Amino acid sequence: MASGEIGGAGLAVLSAAAVAARTGGVLRGNADAQVSRVAPLDRAGPDALSFLAHARYAAWFPESRAGVVLVAPAFADLAGPATRIIVDKPVEAMVAMLGAFHRPPSRPEGIHPSAVVAPSVRVGVGVTVEPHAVIGEAVVVGDGCWIGAGAVVEAGCVLGTHVRLHPNVVVYPGVELGDRVVLHAGARVGREGFGFLPTPQGPRRIPHLGRCVLEADVEVGANSCVDRGSVDDTVIGAGTKLDNLVHVAHNVRIGRLCFLAAQVGIAGSTRIEDGVQLGGQAGVSGHVTIGARASVAAQAGVIGDVPPGEIWSGYPARPHREQLRAQGALARLARVIRPLERLVSGGDPPTASEGAP
Amino acid sequence: MASGEIGGAGLAVLSAAAVAARTGGVLRGNADAQVSRVAPLDRAGPDALSFLAHARYAAWFPESRAGVVLVAPAFADLAGPATRIIVDKPVEAMVAMLGAFHRPPSRPEGIHPSAVVAPSVRVGVGVTVEPHAVIGEAVVVGDGCWIGAGAVVEAGCVLGTHVRLHPNVVVYPGVELGDRVVLHAGARVGREGFGFLPTPQGPRRIPHLGRCVLEADVEVGANSCVDRGSVDDTVIGAGTKLDNLVHVAHNVRIGRLCFLAAQVGIAGSTRIEDGVQLGGQAGVSGHVTIGARASVAAQAGVIGDVPPGEIWSGYPARPHREQLRAQGALARLARVIRPLERLVSGGDPPTASEGAP
Amino acid sequence: MASGEIGGAGLAVLSAAAVAARTGGVLRGNADAQVSRVAPLDRAGPDALSFLAHARYAAWFPESRAGVVLVAPAFADLAGPATRIIVDKPVEAMVAMLGAFHRPPSRPEGIHPSAVVAPSVRVGVGVTVEPHAVIGEAVVVGDGCWIGAGAVVEAGCVLGTHVRLHPNVVVYPGVELGDRVVLHAGARVGREGFGFLPTPQGPRRIPHLGRCVLEADVEVGANSCVDRGSVDDTVIGAGTKLDNLVHVAHNVRIGRLCFLAAQVGIAGSTRIEDGVQLGGQAGVSGHVTIGARASVAAQAGVIGDVPPGEIWSGYPARPHREQLRAQGALARLARVIRPLERLVSGGDPPTASEGAP
Repeated sequence: MASGEIGGAGLAVLSAAAVAARTGGVLRGNADAQVSRVAPLDRAGPDALSFLAHARYAAWFPESRAGVVLVAPAFADLAGPATRIIVDKPVEAMVAMLGAFHRPPSRPEGIHPSAVVAPSVRVGVGVTVEPHAVIGEAVVVGDGCWIGAGAVVEAGCVLGTHVRLHPNVVVYPGVELGDRVVLHAGARVGREGFGFLPTPQGPRRIPHLGRCVLEADVEVGANSCVDRGSVDDTVIGAGTKLDNLVHVAHNVRIGRLCFLAAQVGIAGSTRIEDGVQLGGQAGVSGHVTIGARASVAAQAGVIGDVPPGEIWSGYPARPHREQLRAQGALARLARVIRPLERLVSGGDPPTASEGAP
Repeated sequence: MASGEIGGAGLAVLSAAAVAARTGGVLRGNADAQVSRVAPLDRAGPDALSFLAHARYAAWFPESRAGVVLVAPAFADLAGPATRIIVDKPVEAMVAMLGAFHRPPSRPEGIHPSAVVAPSVRVGVGVTVEPHAVIGEAVVVGDGCWIGAGAVVEAGCVLGTHVRLHPNVVVYPGVELGDRVVLHAGARVGREGFGFLPTPQGPRRIPHLGRCVLEADVEVGANSCVDRGSVDDTVIGAGTKLDNLVHVAHNVRIGRLCFLAAQVGIAGSTRIEDGVQLGGQAGVSGHVTIGARASVAAQAGVIGDVPPGEIWSGYPARPHREQLRAQGALARLARVIRPLERLVSGGDPPTASEGAP
Repeated sequence: MASGEIGGAGLAVLSAAAVAARTGGVLRGNADAQVSRVAPLDRAGPDALSFLAHARYAAWFPESRAGVVLVAPAFADLAGPATRIIVDKPVEAMVAMLGAFHRPPSRPEGIHPSAVVAPSVRVGVGVTVEPHAVIGEAVVVGDGCWIGAGAVVEAGCVLGTHVRLHPNVVVYPGVELGDRVVLHAGARVGREGFGFLPTPQGPRRIPHLGRCVLEADVEVGANSCVDRGSVDDTVIGAGTKLDNLVHVAHNVRIGRLCFLAAQVGIAGSTRIEDGVQLGGQAGVSGHVTIGARASVAAQAGVIGDVPPGEIWSGYPARPHREQLRAQGALARLARVIRPLERLVSGGDPPTASEGAP
């Protein structure tokens, strides 16, 4: 069953002609062919719209049962489904069509009787609280919020309007979530950070009095963690998106419209300025600054400041171009290291065969 | 208390003679010694079966209180517990014995009254639903499924037979889980992936209409995340196993019988063919293919296709043999870089001491 | 709202004179100025104590509205808030003051009626069990324990005194938690590890009979995972602290007073001795030993034993000093690799310009 069939409401049905009109493409085949869902070529049936953009997937085309296919001009004449729409950019055209077929999951209304909501909670209008959710004392829940099953919002949190907490999210006490913030399943926001004071009796927790503020339109992926500040606040700027399993430590400030891919880790008190992109599994040390619109490649390890607008990669991270040059040199080094060693040790001159690739 | 004592059922008790018979080993000492559990040498009591396979742990042997010990031939005469069984491969022998002492955790029957199960759910026979679990509209739960405490299965999901969801798992709407799939605590399956369209008003979510399909016998570790597809589906092939904290992005297809170690991350639309092994913390870029039976070492960063059957490592990942050669050359380079620089800059010839290791 | 304002109890209020006395600093300005909370310079109001320790934040000082500021001697005369206390180490002074303003979150008493506690559970005095928590058969809950909302403690677990389980934690059957252990939201402790036996019918799970023991004062971060042992036990020593999203595999033994930063991964059967520090995203292979008081840098990949007390980094990890030397040599190599290649291939001698930086 495709997710587009969930919920029971009537399906959107579009003709091939309608899809061609919406995407600005050239229709071939049956203009009346009807599609009500989307699917990849190898899984599509006659009721599905599909697409062919890259040669990588062309092998699936001849056998595809898709009812209508958006195809790039290069594949316009390839044998395959008869009803096709030729468009310059099939991926973009397909993305544009997704909204037509997408039906949001059904949303139960009101507060489920199994939810535990403290008497002092202020709840706005149009709010959904699913089964077994728990909302602590003095929490403010803005209009249109949707709190998923088993989610826990601890005392004193303030949620703006239309905040979406997916199931089993935990929001620690006193966290502030701006309008339209989305926390995916299992996200943990506002934990006291990893700060301990060494004492003769062993490490003692440093109290964390700082806030944890997620501004409007922030989205946090599944099982990601954002710690609260100790003295300073942890702040994530408006429109910034975090993927799954991301770690943001105490006192970190992230600017607006940043993208942090899955499994990124940011150590304490670091500043990430507006528009920064961090690739998957990248790590950033504590107390550094990544300048606005900089990009850090996947798996990079940043141990110092990154200037605005630059692309850095590797460990330790440095400008990507330097990194590439170093990696290239390293790959070539292996072929010449032995004669080079002999050279500097005053031994025999290298022979031609040793120097050859 | 050992986990083997939990559940209240009668303990398995085996004599040393019985263990020797089962493992094909040579018994010395008291054939009637009885053991009812397993334990490492330093924690075993007289009721425990233990083992000694490697010199690393031989220091624990003389003082061990274990009732019976499986020992490798090399340690057959080492001073220590009197009752011992000499076997060629003590680890394998011990693993073979584990089943004899393992007692599965007790399983409550039926649907706990605190669980919230939508009226339209179809529930098979022999199903357990633990306290506070939540099952949404139109979900299909196959025979013998076991849904843990606080787990959330959202609308339209289809679970095969004997699916095991551990506590606090979240399955997003419309996910399909094959027979005997196991999701460990906190696993998140079917989240809409990390896809946004840049617009003048900021990034806008791309609707995710693709499915999320886990075929039979897939196991997903604790707190791991598998996103649903956007247009394409996310599919994990039969028998594939994911460890803890793994991330699988949208539209990824993983073949059959793969092993993904802990903290692995797979970016969007990547293909992992059958029988692939990915080491811990390895990362794979989007839109690449890892060929059948290839192995990727721990922490490797794969940024291009990996041919079938090869072993790759490092960042950027390349064939492991090349990687080793490059690392070896790099280690040696540090000792000669200065005289080499002088050489190419036309300076003085290197002295013998500079070139020495 | 600052987290320090949550809970409804009376706020701590201190005068500037009192803060100066507690920190041993020199007061300038209004000795009677009163502060009741802490905040960073750019977010502080007249009721807040703030601090200025580094030039990095000096730009915020002139415009800060903070009521009282702890400042380093270098900034004693900088224009800004009038009431200031000059101290040698403002960060340390601030940390020392945090306790004065910290108010622990309010704690509901007793067992919430929505919690599901098996009849055979033994509960100590002064225990809190929050809504929707689930406690399985034969669990022992020590005095003063605090079980958060939606947490699941499976059958046979033993919790010492004053254990704190934050919301949505899952503790698998038979786990032992020492006194004052803290598990943050979403931590998963005691899962059967990632062990499979290849068989002709596909991989078969190895039963995990080993225990999972967290000694006194261990703290586990949000969404971290600690697997139980197969034959051996998984043990984390007293006072050891794990940050968020850490993975500890089966049979691992970690000593006392170690620190594992966020996203660290430890593969199976590895030994971490007392006082070890592992930087963020570091990974450690299976079956190795990291000696007492060793440090492993962030993102390092340890594939062999690390001697006690040493600092290792990089992948593959080696002594940090060697690593730095290798990295430095690599950075310089790129500038000379081409003429060096020509040299060993017997080509033309390098020209001066090629050898120049």
